[in-house]
Amino acid sequence: MFCPVIELAQQLIRCPSLSPNDAGCQALLIARLEAIGFHIEPMHFGDTQNFWATRGQGQTLAFAGHTDVVPVGDERQWINPPFEPAIRDGLLFGRGAADMKGSLAAMVVAAERFVEQHPHHTGRLAFLITSDEEASGINGTVKVVEQLMARQERVEYCLVGEPSSTERVGDVVKNGRRGSITANLTVHGVQGHVAYPHLADNPVHRALPALTELAATEWDQGNEFFPPTSMQIANIQAGTGSNNVIPGDLFVQFNFRFSTELTDQQIREAVANLLDRHQLRYTLEWNLSGQPFLTAKGALVEAVVDAVQHYNEIKPELLTNGGTSDGRFIARMGTQVVELGPVNATIHKINECVSAADLQTLSRMYQRIMQLLLT
Amino acid sequence: MFCPVIELAQQLIRCPSLSPNDAGCQALLIARLEAIGFHIEPMHFGDTQNFWATRGQGQTLAFAGHTDVVPVGDERQWINPPFEPAIRDGLLFGRGAADMKGSLAAMVVAAERFVEQHPHHTGRLAFLITSDEEASGINGTVKVVEQLMARQERVEYCLVGEPSSTERVGDVVKNGRRGSITANLTVHGVQGHVAYPHLADNPVHRALPALTELAATEWDQGNEFFPPTSMQIANIQAGTGSNNVIPGDLFVQFNFRFSTELTDQQIREAVANLLDRHQLRYTLEWNLSGQPFLTAKGALVEAVVDAVQHYNEIKPELLTNGGTSDGRFIARMGTQVVELGPVNATIHKINECVSAADLQTLSRMYQRIMQLLLT
Repeated sequence: MFCPVIELAQQLIRCPSLSPNDAGCQALLIARLEAIGFHIEPMHFGDTQNFWATRGQGQTLAFAGHTDVVPVGDERQWINPPFEPAIRDGLLFGRGAADMKGSLAAMVVAAERFVEQHPHHTGRLAFLITSDEEASGINGTVKVVEQLMARQERVEYCLVGEPSSTERVGDVVKNGRRGSITANLTVHGVQGHVAYPHLADNPVHRALPALTELAATEWDQGNEFFPPTSMQIANIQAGTGSNNVIPGDLFVQFNFRFSTELTDQQIREAVANLLDRHQLRYTLEWNLSGQPFLTAKGALVEAVVDAVQHYNEIKPELLTNGGTSDGRFIARMGTQVVELGPVNATIHKINECVSAADLQTLSRMYQRIMQLLLT
Repeated sequence: MFCPVIELAQQLIRCPSLSPNDAGCQALLIARLEAIGFHIEPMHFGDTQNFWATRGQGQTLAFAGHTDVVPVGDERQWINPPFEPAIRDGLLFGRGAADMKGSLAAMVVAAERFVEQHPHHTGRLAFLITSDEEASGINGTVKVVEQLMARQERVEYCLVGEPSSTERVGDVVKNGRRGSITANLTVHGVQGHVAYPHLADNPVHRALPALTELAATEWDQGNEFFPPTSMQIANIQAGTGSNNVIPGDLFVQFNFRFSTELTDQQIREAVANLLDRHQLRYTLEWNLSGQPFLTAKGALVEAVVDAVQHYNEIKPELLTNGGTSDGRFIARMGTQVVELGPVNATIHKINECVSAADLQTLSRMYQRIMQLLLT
């Protein structure tokens, strides 16, 4: 069986593109897109390779994705070397098979088939590809978006190929993401000897009631589109290692995934109020990774739902849960953003794999979305 | 001014005896004690030098002390090199000046003067000297005591030269010490991604209410001799360092300094009950450093109070607060144990120092205690 989607996915998997290395993936994609009339604009920033490819003029449908992959873990546990793709029982194995070289292959082949059928399509078909989505992402999609915004380019619709599905391709589509903000809190005390607690001020003891309240707080109840805001303490550290020294400082790092019911400003204020109410001496620094965004309805959501129903006879669930993606940057342009990709059960794991048939179906869904929006 | 106490203290400070190194201190002490008729028994265990010295027969008064010192810290902050003793404004500076080479010098000179006056004293005068009290102490006083107990040697009275005083020499005497026990607690959860908290179980969130209760617990109210039992969290750690991973385990180390109102067994049970009540999954290991001990009254306490009143015209306060000392091992022999030493304001710090006049007074107090108990 020869299938151009699987063939291209395998070529991409063979490139060991650990973030932020592209390892030749983008050259493969660019060659294919140039061959069907795309204008290619490389946008490299720092250690990261990106490109912006366009075909046509006007209302724009962009496909977004990344060529980089996460580390392979213990290579000896893979049934197959992670950068040597293999098909077993209908599953394509390899690092990046599901996240997201399979999607990239599906997009490019969809574009080839679409352009063949509609060489003079309306509007503009585009690709926004980066080699750093999995690591810091500092020089990836965010910089490309800044560049596009600086020159007033408009992108009406963006389909991100992140693996959104849980059991069947298209059963879940992400039409938004929660915001993410991280607090770095240091509670100050006074170091001392455990035998003389009255001469010290234990910041752990002092902080415990506040942290207990923080962990027990219901921040909101979510809404129609978003699950409730959730706070998780990711790191906590105090102490010198000695069992007879009262620590001088306590460090706590906690992360919020927040719905559109809250703003990051409200979160910052609520946390500061809570800490003040407990009369702590503290230093608090915030790091906002992304605002929540939502594409509740519109032509892109309709096209995606139509395509999934057409090929898989299921109505996709529109969800906003889970982690962040580059969609948060693209949404800043006022773009309608939807994520549709393969089943995510094995992503970031040993023996990452994807159903070969799913990738073929996915490519047809992408092609139908192009038809619905650009013809 | 020539003073044999200050002279010997300076000789001892010149030996850089960082735990467990003796660096020649014990040879100096042994030479002085042999010269006045002491029988010397070296008792070296592992990396630690100890000796047991006795003169006479019968009811025994032992002086106990250590030749090792804690690290000097940033040597550039010392007004004087820490192992080059110097007297400024009546203060003897140097690492170990107060803890406790000054006391060792005061003891040995006191013995010399006492033996000169009472060459045929009644009872037995003894010295128990170790080179590891400040570090692990594993091969120090505890091993010497085990050896003495194995051969049924009795020691009725022991004066430990630890720096017990706060403003004037003898204003505080320690006639007991609290017990010390350390808990190593691991609270188990399930690691996961912060974006999917329902798939994980954050051990920090789970443990916070229990730790809050632990820190707020009143364990006892102390008694006539002991301050209330105190618990301090010395170390706490959870997290991978990443801000998007929910930690799998939380480690907490906490230490109790406990009075004779509680046993270590009661503490172990109370903590386990508390953790069970909060339905935590946990692993808990205990490390008992010492039981509380007390010398409420008796000939030694009377002699020490008399000596302090005689030379400083103050009635010493008898306290049991503060850290542990080797007195806890000696008390196992059924010995009356009292700690009397110089002012502890600078111990373990940069520019450790002791009043030269205090050391001279201290030596006279030690000599009077010998006279009261051995003539």
